Amino acid sequence: MDKTIAAAAQRRVAGCRHRFDTRFEAYFDALAENLDTPALSRFTPRCLELLRDLSLRGGKRLRVALLYEAARLVTDERPPGLEEAALSIELLQTHGLVHDDIIDDAPVRRGGPSTYYAYRREFPGDDGTALGLAVLAGDLASFLSMHVLLEADAPAEIKQAMLGVQLRAGAETVAGQITDLERDFEPLPSEDLLHTVCEYKTTRYSILAPLRLGLLAAGENLAEHDERLRRYATPAGISGQMRDDYLDLFGDESVTGKSPGSDIRSGRRSYALRAVLAAATAAERSLVESALGDPRCTAGTVDRIRKIALEHGVDDALRAGMRRYAEEAAAEASGWRPHWREEAVAFFEGLPLWNVQRMQ
Amino acid sequence: MDKTIAAAAQRRVAGCRHRFDTRFEAYFDALAENLDTPALSRFTPRCLELLRDLSLRGGKRLRVALLYEAARLVTDERPPGLEEAALSIELLQTHGLVHDDIIDDAPVRRGGPSTYYAYRREFPGDDGTALGLAVLAGDLASFLSMHVLLEADAPAEIKQAMLGVQLRAGAETVAGQITDLERDFEPLPSEDLLHTVCEYKTTRYSILAPLRLGLLAAGENLAEHDERLRRYATPAGISGQMRDDYLDLFGDESVTGKSPGSDIRSGRRSYALRAVLAAATAAERSLVESALGDPRCTAGTVDRIRKIALEHGVDDALRAGMRRYAEEAAAEASGWRPHWREEAVAFFEGLPLWNVQRMQ
Repeated sequence: MDKTIAAAAQRRVAGCRHRFDTRFEAYFDALAENLDTPALSRFTPRCLELLRDLSLRGGKRLRVALLYEAARLVTDERPPGLEEAALSIELLQTHGLVHDDIIDDAPVRRGGPSTYYAYRREFPGDDGTALGLAVLAGDLASFLSMHVLLEADAPAEIKQAMLGVQLRAGAETVAGQITDLERDFEPLPSEDLLHTVCEYKTTRYSILAPLRLGLLAAGENLAEHDERLRRYATPAGISGQMRDDYLDLFGDESVTGKSPGSDIRSGRRSYALRAVLAAATAAERSLVESALGDPRCTAGTVDRIRKIALEHGVDDALRAGMRRYAEEAAAEASGWRPHWREEAVAFFEGLPLWNVQRMQ
Repeated sequence: MDKTIAAAAQRRVAGCRHRFDTRFEAYFDALAENLDTPALSRFTPRCLELLRDLSLRGGKRLRVALLYEAARLVTDERPPGLEEAALSIELLQTHGLVHDDIIDDAPVRRGGPSTYYAYRREFPGDDGTALGLAVLAGDLASFLSMHVLLEADAPAEIKQAMLGVQLRAGAETVAGQITDLERDFEPLPSEDLLHTVCEYKTTRYSILAPLRLGLLAAGENLAEHDERLRRYATPAGISGQMRDDYLDLFGDESVTGKSPGSDIRSGRRSYALRAVLAAATAAERSLVESALGDPRCTAGTVDRIRKIALEHGVDDALRAGMRRYAEEAAAEASGWRPHWREEAVAFFEGLPLWNVQRMQ
């Protein structure tokens, strides 16, 4: 039963992605004309091109699927404002990625160069210009993300509510990112702190905001449903974050497409590394701590940390944790049946379960 | 006559500043409660404190004066939305300053440390964390700048139009900043390119957006007046930029409060330096070019460049230019008399003239 609804959720995600990507490309095609920029500037079109490239290299578009399906809880029509909300969500994501890759000094994003490193390549020996242009590119994506909502053919009150959702999501995500940086100054952050970072840094803009926007577009009164949405979003977010953290330590490179250990090298006290630190002996802990935040930490050291984690059953504990939170989210969604449309409820039930299954 | 209306404009600016600064402080007092941030984070309140410090160290608040006076073109009442528009304008300015000081690697802003350098001092030897936190602080100010407009007690259509003005201003300013970076790769940028940079980087958000927001709050239909506003904003912006560029080369440190030559050291082809390069002999040009972009350029070299400029009459030409553009803006404003209220029209007439007079 779980497998069936998870597989159905997976199919819906793929369908949403296809529908959205065509729309996103058309948005960027029109942008060059809609945006008032200096005709004699060559750097400005290049900035738009880099934003377009990064945006269209997007992954599964889970946020867009959450948005579309949230509207489908209410109606099978596509209400006005829904497509603009999808664009807003993904442009806000582009903004976040461009600035994150500055913050993390990350060369690669979505299988291509990060915007910061694309500029570094174009201005060799002039990191100041590259940094400046990357900061500005991220800023532009943020303004575009909000502006696109104004273009919706929806009532002013709905657009205003949507802008409120996205602007709060943007501000709360910043608070989450700040707290994320802060976390890595703690030798052993509490699991509560990790839940808080996950909630603010990811869940609010990646799960809760899409749900809210979809229901707003469909004409629902958010205040009546917000508690319900939060009860779903919070455990779904934690389960997804645990999955990412698990894969970063235990994942198979041939499946995930990236080498494990990036959380170790960037000093991120992830769910996985926090659990290792909490369970380790003093000698093991000292090994882990000396590796944390060392960008040159070798694959051999990552292997040793993985073995320590396995010995202490951190893998099993994390898998149990992510399943428990996924089931909590699915149970909340299944309680939506009396209120909302069956096919979309089944999607929200299946999505967190699929998220857990696809790594097993 | 010119002196009288300029002096009256000056008094209005001071009054607007006083009224606004009290309101801005109250905004930050309430922000800690209104913003949903992680209770256990210490870095987030510190970020808000730095944004508050920078914001309240504000200068003359010319943008706010332009906004208030634009509404007064129509009414002597304070229409709903006007105060929120003022907050939005100054928060967008804070956003721009925080990110500009990253882009320019600038330690000082408004007589105190830039946000970037405040963080660098708090995280010695860890520039990555300082950079990350400064990028995030600027992002937060940008989201707050737009969100505050939603809190206005104004009709949804007006708030939506205001958001459109501010979001377009934000995006166009980014394009202007990008073009500004691009300009400094040109050995001798055309005066047209300088006008374009000024228009996009400064005029749109500093003059045109406040005018538009004030009229919107007062219930005016923007489309009917936008040409008029642009005919005022563009020359007023150029005149103001010429003044800044003039003072950076010819200004008296005991009056301006900052040492001259910062445009030389940062390699900025300002109106003043462009004029020097255009007029200089080959030997003089080679001296100027070797100083441009050299952060260690000495006061002696700045002196020599100033002398070259004086010999070629660059000071007189710039003063004539800034007066000509100020008079063009004032003439446009004086044509507003049949449409709008006398006292505010006189303010817009006097402001660009005051701007020129106060440096003489």
